[in-house]
Amino acid sequence: MFFAVDHEYMAQALRLAEKGLYTTTPNPRVGCVIVRDGKVVGSGWHERAGEPHAEIHALKQAGELARGATAYVTLEPCSHHGRTPPCAEALVQAGVGRVVVAMVDPNPLVAGEGLARLQQAGIQTDIGLLEKEAHELNIGFVSRMTCGRPWLRLKIAASLDGKTALNNGVSQWITGPDARRDAHRLRARSCALLTGIGTVLADDPSLNVREVETTRQPLRVVVDSALRMSPTAKMLGLGPTLVATVSGDPARADELRAAGAEVLVLPAVEGRVDLVRLLDELGRRCINEVMVEAGATLNGALVKQELVDEYTFYFAPLLLGHRARGMFDLPELSSMGERRELRIADVAMVGRDLRIRALPVN
Amino acid sequence: MFFAVDHEYMAQALRLAEKGLYTTTPNPRVGCVIVRDGKVVGSGWHERAGEPHAEIHALKQAGELARGATAYVTLEPCSHHGRTPPCAEALVQAGVGRVVVAMVDPNPLVAGEGLARLQQAGIQTDIGLLEKEAHELNIGFVSRMTCGRPWLRLKIAASLDGKTALNNGVSQWITGPDARRDAHRLRARSCALLTGIGTVLADDPSLNVREVETTRQPLRVVVDSALRMSPTAKMLGLGPTLVATVSGDPARADELRAAGAEVLVLPAVEGRVDLVRLLDELGRRCINEVMVEAGATLNGALVKQELVDEYTFYFAPLLLGHRARGMFDLPELSSMGERRELRIADVAMVGRDLRIRALPVN
Repeated sequence: MFFAVDHEYMAQALRLAEKGLYTTTPNPRVGCVIVRDGKVVGSGWHERAGEPHAEIHALKQAGELARGATAYVTLEPCSHHGRTPPCAEALVQAGVGRVVVAMVDPNPLVAGEGLARLQQAGIQTDIGLLEKEAHELNIGFVSRMTCGRPWLRLKIAASLDGKTALNNGVSQWITGPDARRDAHRLRARSCALLTGIGTVLADDPSLNVREVETTRQPLRVVVDSALRMSPTAKMLGLGPTLVATVSGDPARADELRAAGAEVLVLPAVEGRVDLVRLLDELGRRCINEVMVEAGATLNGALVKQELVDEYTFYFAPLLLGHRARGMFDLPELSSMGERRELRIADVAMVGRDLRIRALPVN
Repeated sequence: MFFAVDHEYMAQALRLAEKGLYTTTPNPRVGCVIVRDGKVVGSGWHERAGEPHAEIHALKQAGELARGATAYVTLEPCSHHGRTPPCAEALVQAGVGRVVVAMVDPNPLVAGEGLARLQQAGIQTDIGLLEKEAHELNIGFVSRMTCGRPWLRLKIAASLDGKTALNNGVSQWITGPDARRDAHRLRARSCALLTGIGTVLADDPSLNVREVETTRQPLRVVVDSALRMSPTAKMLGLGPTLVATVSGDPARADELRAAGAEVLVLPAVEGRVDLVRLLDELGRRCINEVMVEAGATLNGALVKQELVDEYTFYFAPLLLGHRARGMFDLPELSSMGERRELRIADVAMVGRDLRIRALPVN
């Protein structure tokens, strides 16, 4: 059972967890608040892998005051010895009286173990407070833990008539500076940015986080079935880049490797990179969230294979006309029954542009 | 100078004016509230042309209580003898002490005359309260009075990827029932509904108001340069339809006339109906608001000639893919500088769909 104050402290813990949005990967973002007699006596968040978990920071700050206190944690405390000792054990040792948890560990193999340890020690546990918010915050971690694949967020910047670039390929700039900064926030929380060779050849993008401060840059992933990428592509000079291909041309691959790229040869599906295999591989590499910023070919392939978990559309108040480029290359539909249904989850003005978050309906 | 209560009563007068949204054409929508000693002693709105104006209804209701009272009117009282005697004179005769007006008469030839008559009689006048709202309510009347042309509202129902129909022409239904009802409200307030022959041939639409109650149906206007319209088109059996053409084929025209259509031969521009001349003609016919529900050809022509005053987009949470039909046929752009800029004025969820109102930026 939850009280009004429980909501308040869990919301506080969630805000702390958010501070790790750009850094905790591959770990989840977690916040913790310890409250005794109506006062916060300790708080903390997980900052990056290898460093202490949120609970440990909060317990350290609370010290002796943790005894009999209530701990609010946005994710079930861990019960296993990883790079750090288990948090459930630390909470037991500190003598807390009650632990409120927003959501259980999404990994079905370990879910509930941390809670069980607390309960064995006679600590009251309450689970599920602000669960939706906690889930949203770690949507990529949850996806990887439950399906082995990252959460795939497809971003589109388009005119109101649904065009993403002029017919000559020019796409800079459709959306305004506020929308671009907003999109860089999405980049910064992503573990990988995925694009297609068409976009690389047309725009030679940096595909990094520039508009917001971050200490970590996402991995660049380019789908390049025929290895057309140039060793002088700008992004290769800017950090780790994975080029996914089906090409067996060792000379081209070696050139790209010499330029700093990792070339990953994957099985082909109809002559193109098997995107399911690519996402599985990214999951294995502990990639939680992937953001797609690509053209109509790769966008369409991802939609067609139902690999998109979330769409973020930025609509700029512009018209570009029917000769400009569209969002998704998809097979022609012959009836409305074949349409792909989404659900609008969120709408917001971002500067002069409109942002729409939508989720596929299964 | 306006007081808080002035806002309240003018808002009340605007709500009354709105009751005439579907009926007052070609007259403006006007509401009036008469207040004495903090009490509403009379109120009214204009219902339809030929019937009494809002002020007359309100004065009749107030009777002797109008003496010394304050009248709130959403539009400057008329000063001319039309089908009804002038309202400014009636307010003077009734002995009101103060008249608060939301906006002056938009007709530059008569603007201020009603106010002058009131001022001559020693009545205090305050002008401009909730002016924007009053202007919005009569946006078509204002357009016709100031430019001689109706206000042109272009409506688009599209998928999130900007598609209005499948490639085979099927467009029923992209948006949901709530959005369709909302669009019928826009139809009901329009004096004319404008479409192109392509839409008529593909959909054979009724193009009338069905989803909301109204006593008046808008004029149907079809742009049909080559007179391809069939005399058996469904809309011809449903009421007045104007077919605008450049064709000189008298047999085709006679056939359509026999089926109930009015055929209007207009000058051609590049082989197509001169849309400027068509809108001028609609203005002459006292058409205040025109709603466009057409395909990419007519939509594109109207955009290209900068004849669109307002866009209403309904976006359904669907994807239809690049082979489906787009919104606007426009010449190819070679640089972003040629893009057409809009401004998003209003965003709202309508059922599961999203409505965006946007205005062109000049």
